[in-house]
Amino acid sequence: MTNIQTLAQQAKSAVAAMALAGTDDKNRALHAIAGALRERQDEILAANGRDVETGRTMGLREALIDRLTLTRARIEGMASGVEQVAALPDPIGGAAHETRRPNGLRIARRRVPLGLIGLIYEARPNVTVDAAVLCLKAGNAVLLRGGKEAIHSNTALANLMRKALAESGLPADAVCLVEDTTRESAAAMMNLTGLLNVLIPRGGAGLIRSVVENARVPVIETGAGICHIYVDDHADLDMAAGILYNAKTSRPSVCNAAECVLVARSIAGAFLPKAKAMLDRKNVEWRGCPETCAILNGVKEATEQDYDTEYGDYILSARVVDGMDQAAEHIAAHGSGHSEAIVTDNYFTAQRFLDRVDAAAVYVNASTRYTDGEVFGLGAEIGISTQKMHARGPMGLEALTSVKYVVYGTGQVR
Amino acid sequence: MTNIQTLAQQAKSAVAAMALAGTDDKNRALHAIAGALRERQDEILAANGRDVETGRTMGLREALIDRLTLTRARIEGMASGVEQVAALPDPIGGAAHETRRPNGLRIARRRVPLGLIGLIYEARPNVTVDAAVLCLKAGNAVLLRGGKEAIHSNTALANLMRKALAESGLPADAVCLVEDTTRESAAAMMNLTGLLNVLIPRGGAGLIRSVVENARVPVIETGAGICHIYVDDHADLDMAAGILYNAKTSRPSVCNAAECVLVARSIAGAFLPKAKAMLDRKNVEWRGCPETCAILNGVKEATEQDYDTEYGDYILSARVVDGMDQAAEHIAAHGSGHSEAIVTDNYFTAQRFLDRVDAAAVYVNASTRYTDGEVFGLGAEIGISTQKMHARGPMGLEALTSVKYVVYGTGQVR
Repeated sequence: MTNIQTLAQQAKSAVAAMALAGTDDKNRALHAIAGALRERQDEILAANGRDVETGRTMGLREALIDRLTLTRARIEGMASGVEQVAALPDPIGGAAHETRRPNGLRIARRRVPLGLIGLIYEARPNVTVDAAVLCLKAGNAVLLRGGKEAIHSNTALANLMRKALAESGLPADAVCLVEDTTRESAAAMMNLTGLLNVLIPRGGAGLIRSVVENARVPVIETGAGICHIYVDDHADLDMAAGILYNAKTSRPSVCNAAECVLVARSIAGAFLPKAKAMLDRKNVEWRGCPETCAILNGVKEATEQDYDTEYGDYILSARVVDGMDQAAEHIAAHGSGHSEAIVTDNYFTAQRFLDRVDAAAVYVNASTRYTDGEVFGLGAEIGISTQKMHARGPMGLEALTSVKYVVYGTGQVR
Repeated sequence: MTNIQTLAQQAKSAVAAMALAGTDDKNRALHAIAGALRERQDEILAANGRDVETGRTMGLREALIDRLTLTRARIEGMASGVEQVAALPDPIGGAAHETRRPNGLRIARRRVPLGLIGLIYEARPNVTVDAAVLCLKAGNAVLLRGGKEAIHSNTALANLMRKALAESGLPADAVCLVEDTTRESAAAMMNLTGLLNVLIPRGGAGLIRSVVENARVPVIETGAGICHIYVDDHADLDMAAGILYNAKTSRPSVCNAAECVLVARSIAGAFLPKAKAMLDRKNVEWRGCPETCAILNGVKEATEQDYDTEYGDYILSARVVDGMDQAAEHIAAHGSGHSEAIVTDNYFTAQRFLDRVDAAAVYVNASTRYTDGEVFGLGAEIGISTQKMHARGPMGLEALTSVKYVVYGTGQVR
C-alpha cells in the first residue's frame, strides 16, 4: 500500500515537467519508444514468453493465452501505433475563446493536461504501450497497473518507455508501473486521493464495477457493452439481417458487438427465421423470449439475467416488442449506454430513436461495430466511456486533457 | 434512506421528458418560475420567516442568519436571475463535428443533458432556485438537498418551481427536494449509483471534503479557494497593493478572495509596510513568516496550518519568498487549484507563472476576484470547479451537459 503511494508520488513528480514539455519533445520521446520496441523485440518476446509459460502452467484459457501473447507482428503493430499517436495533433496549449472584457482584461481558455492518470487493466500487454503513449502525448504522467498474467511483459515494456523518455530529455517517472499485482494494489490505487487526477479501468465488467463502486478518486467508466439492434416494422429485412450478423459475429469479444436483437412484432415472423439462418453460419446460440421461441423452433428461452449479460461470445438474446417505444424502454432498462442501433426505413421513427435512446452512440441502419476512436475521427482511443461526465464514447487525446483560464490584466480590480 | 432512493427514482423519471423538451418549452417554464417568485413573495417570505426565527432560537451566527434571510429585493434578484438564464442560448441539441466517412456513414456529435443532477448545499435558499434553473435550462432533472436551516424556504421554492413546470407542460418531478436534512440523507445521496449522473456539493470545505471522500457517484468538486497574490521583484508596488487590497477585502467570504500574499525578498521591505497600511483601513489581521514579522512590527507569526486555511474573513497570511519559483512551489503545496495571481512587470516571469501554476484561473496583474461565470462569459454559474475532470473553473450551462454520437447509415457493416 505504502509502496503504491510512494510510486504515485514519484509519478506525480513528473507531472509539472510533462505539462511544460513541447510538442517536439513529446514526439521525440514517442519515436524513441517506437524505435526501442523494434530494437528490443527479442528482449520483449523473452519476457512475454515467461508470462505465457506461467499462464499455461496456471491453466489459463486459450483465449486469454492468445490475448497475452506477443509476436513480432504484434510488436510491430504497437510500434506503428506509437508513430500514429506521434503524428496526431498535440491537444495541449491551444487557447480558445479569448475574450476581452470592457475593463481591458483578456481572458483565454487554454487546454492543459489532466496531470497523473491511473490505469488498471487486465491481460493484454499491448495496453501498457498503447495507453501510456496517449497519456504522454497529452502531456500527462501515467501510473499503470496491469494484470498479474502479463507482469514480465509489462515490466519490460515500461522499462523501455522509461528509458526512451529519459533519453529524450523527459522524466522517466512519467511512466510508472505498479509491480504488485495483488487485489490490494488495485484497491490502493482507488484511494490515491490528491495524487491521481483520474483512474481509468479497462477490462471485464467485474473490474469496472469494482472500480466504480470503490474508488475515491475520479473515475471514467469504460467498455461495458450490452448493445442492441432494434429491427423496426418498416425495416429492410435483408439489411437488418446483415447488420445483425455483422454486429454479433464480426468480433463477438469486443464491447461494441451486439448482445441482443429486438424485433417489432409485425415483422418477427418474417425476420427471425431469416436472421437465424444467417447467424447459423457462425453457430450463434439464440436465447429468446416466448414469442421468439414460438417462431424459431428449438431456441432456448431467455431469462431476465440474459438481457443483462454481455456475452462477449457467439450467443444472442432476442425479444419481440410492440414497436420502437417498447424497444427504447428495453434498452433503457438493460443497455449499458454504449452503442444502440435501429434498422428502419421510417424517417420519423429513426429520428425519434436517435433522440430518445440514451447511449454514447446511437445508430440508424448501421452496425454498432463502428463505435471506435479511429472511425469517429479521434485517431486513437484509450477506451470507450459509457458515463456522461467528462468524456463519452471513444476517448481520444482530448479526453486526457483539462482546461485552464489565463487572465492578462493591467492592474484591474473589482 | 429508502425515501431518498424513491425520490431519486421519481426525479429520474423526468429525465427523458426533459431531454426531449424544446428550448421554447424550457424557457416558458423558466419565465413561469420567475413570475411565480414575484407573485408568491408573501408566501416565500412567510416560510423564510419561520426559518429565520428557528435560526435565531438555535443561536445561529449573524452571518448565517444574513445568508438565510430573504427580502423582497433578494426575491426580485432571484426572479431576474431566472430570466437571465432563460435568455442564455440553449446548450442542448447543437451537433458539432459532423463528419462523413469514406463508406458514407455520417457521424455527428450532439450535445445532450447530463440527466439527473444532485446538489447538496448549505444555508442560502437562493441556491435552490439559481441552481435548479441552470439544471433545467440544460435539460436536466435535479435532486436538491439544502441545509436544515432553510428547509421551509426551500420547500416553498421547490413547490413553486414544480407547479410552474407542470403548468408549462414539463414534468414537475424535474425538481425534487429532499426534505430529510439529516446527515443520513446526505450520505444516501452519495450512494445513488445508477440514479445520479453527477453530484455537486456547494458549501464549506467540510461538506465538500466529505462528499469527495465518500461519494460513489461522480462528483464535481467546487468552491474551495485558497488563493494567492504573488508580488514579484519587478512589480509596480502600488498596483500590487491595490490588487491585494481588492482581492482580500472586497468580499472576504467568497472563494475567489485572496488568503495569502507571497512577496519577493528584494521588494519585501518596501512592499509590506505599504500593503499593511492599505489593509489596515479594513482592519485586516496579518499572520506572517518570520521575515514578514521582522519587517512588520506586531504581526502574529503564521503556522503551517495558516497556509492551508481558507479564512473567508479579514485575515491574511504572508510569506517572503526567494522569487517566482519558490512562490509557485508554495502555491503547489498549499493552493486549492482555484485562482492564483502574479503582479509583475517582467514579461518572461509572467508567462512562466501562467504556464507553471496549476489552477482553474491564473492571473497576471489583476485581482483573483474576477473568477466568476459572468465575468468569464458563461452567463451564470452553478459553482466553480477546482477539479480537472469534466469542468474546471466557473461552470455554466455547458458544464451541465454531455455528448452523444449520432450515426446515420444506409446499411453499413464493418
